[in-house]
Amino acid sequence: MNQRNIIIISAPSGTGKSSIIQLLLKSNPGFAFSISTTTRSPRPGEKEGKDYYFVSEEEFKGMIDRDEFVEWAQVHGNYYGTTRREVKRILSQNLMCLLDIDVQGAVNILKIYPDAKAVFILPPSLSELKKRLLKRGDTSLDQIELRLENAKKELAYISYYHYFVVNDDLGKAVHMIQTHIHEN
Amino acid sequence: MNQRNIIIISAPSGTGKSSIIQLLLKSNPGFAFSISTTTRSPRPGEKEGKDYYFVSEEEFKGMIDRDEFVEWAQVHGNYYGTTRREVKRILSQNLMCLLDIDVQGAVNILKIYPDAKAVFILPPSLSELKKRLLKRGDTSLDQIELRLENAKKELAYISYYHYFVVNDDLGKAVHMIQTHIHEN
Repeated sequence: MNQRNIIIISAPSGTGKSSIIQLLLKSNPGFAFSISTTTRSPRPGEKEGKDYYFVSEEEFKGMIDRDEFVEWAQVHGNYYGTTRREVKRILSQNLMCLLDIDVQGAVNILKIYPDAKAVFILPPSLSELKKRLLKRGDTSLDQIELRLENAKKELAYISYYHYFVVNDDLGKAVHMIQTHIHEN
Repeated sequence: MNQRNIIIISAPSGTGKSSIIQLLLKSNPGFAFSISTTTRSPRPGEKEGKDYYFVSEEEFKGMIDRDEFVEWAQVHGNYYGTTRREVKRILSQNLMCLLDIDVQGAVNILKIYPDAKAVFILPPSLSELKKRLLKRGDTSLDQIELRLENAKKELAYISYYHYFVVNDDLGKAVHMIQTHIHEN
């Protein structure tokens, strides 16, 4: 298993991570997205094995006990995790395995795969991050302040990462990440 | 005193901070560099009131007691600090006050001037930082490893900063910082 083909991508909420990952996958046929396992119910349109692997809480806990996850977390009462099997499935096809993971998950994965490449995407500034969160318009001011506080907490984990990319321009950010991924 | 005219710039060693600050000062007549006070002896060519304000250890300690510093530190047996007077001297001339400060000093200054703008300059990656430190050629491999470890420790302070700039291209980095400084 070539751990260098495991690419962890983390970013505070509002930094544009989803757009970056979508563009990376679209432009690079050699990249595959690691699909998470979750106990939450499928939303309309979500497909098993494409958006998530959907399992019951009992199954998920069994998987934890059998050490099947490289990282997992409980968020708003639902479990989410990345299985060793999923990472191996992608790497065995000689693809780059892209993981969209929060900072704590990233730290756990780096313990298991220390040679994985970890990319942290930063906003150009906290004020720009606030502007972007406001533009979304789907969150209250209280929630935006909470997200900014969370962003700061996440930023404090940046020292665990290997690559640093400021997303002030989507195309440039994607280009920089591609360059980093292909570095030796 | 308009605290928004106080610009703190921090970066791990090898990130290119000195070149960035030189270029910022050269291109912006409205910027002035905050001169530190130190107990270390002047090196050949260094001038009082240009490179540093040189004082004795006794004087420095007296200044600490009189709370004259917004930040100070002891490095390799010498004291270095930024005085309130120096910051006021620059701001009273209606200039932007550029402070080249380590992460702990920055945290202290932000306590005193919470509206100051703090810019953190990052290397594109830890591997690039290592390359740049190796290129300098004036440090042993042990020292480079130590500097990389220090860089990681400094990165962990990034959550105290407001602006994030990756220095993968000197001109672009300077441009981004100028944009941030002139933001409201």
